[in-house]
Amino acid sequence: MSLVIAGTIRLPPENLEAFRPHMLAMLTASRAEEGCLAYSYAQDVAEPGLIRVFEVWRDQACLDAHFLTDHLAAWRASWPAFGVSDRRLIAYETLNDRPL
Amino acid sequence: MSLVIAGTIRLPPENLEAFRPHMLAMLTASRAEEGCLAYSYAQDVAEPGLIRVFEVWRDQACLDAHFLTDHLAAWRASWPAFGVSDRRLIAYETLNDRPL
Repeated sequence: MSLVIAGTIRLPPENLEAFRPHMLAMLTASRAEEGCLAYSYAQDVAEPGLIRVFEVWRDQACLDAHFLTDHLAAWRASWPAFGVSDRRLIAYETLNDRPL
Repeated sequence: MSLVIAGTIRLPPENLEAFRPHMLAMLTASRAEEGCLAYSYAQDVAEPGLIRVFEVWRDQACLDAHFLTDHLAAWRASWPAFGVSDRRLIAYETLNDRPL
């Protein structure tokens, strides 16, 4: 079944607006990839500067291909300029899913 | 293995600040529940008023207990006053997880 990727990155809250275009570019490029079923960034409501990442990929091969894209390299390369750090992501292999 | 719950609710963006204390109260109460491994709300960076929900529960019994809590009832009861709508959650049964 699908792979769910979830976790966080951090940046100084005052850098968030300047960093937003990089997040939007990454969302658009990633959602267009083969096997990308969901891809989002969101600001935690309780912790300013904590960005929550959520992704769903059809399978490991699609996720592997994602890691080799130019937009992923550009995304990571942009981090130092905005003080992005503390990447913590978990991959969940899923058995099934259902509306709750 | 664990259950991942992910999805969205919506509200008019201008109501977000007034609704924030209800989100914080719900986070605090839910995180204190037996078997709650993660619980968060975050504002989508691309769509104002789209709130992303992410939860991890140890098992179905813990999730079932969550649905019977007073704080969940109070949370749902607060929605109409803030125009919260369009609840879309998916439950993923997971097989395993690993740092990515």
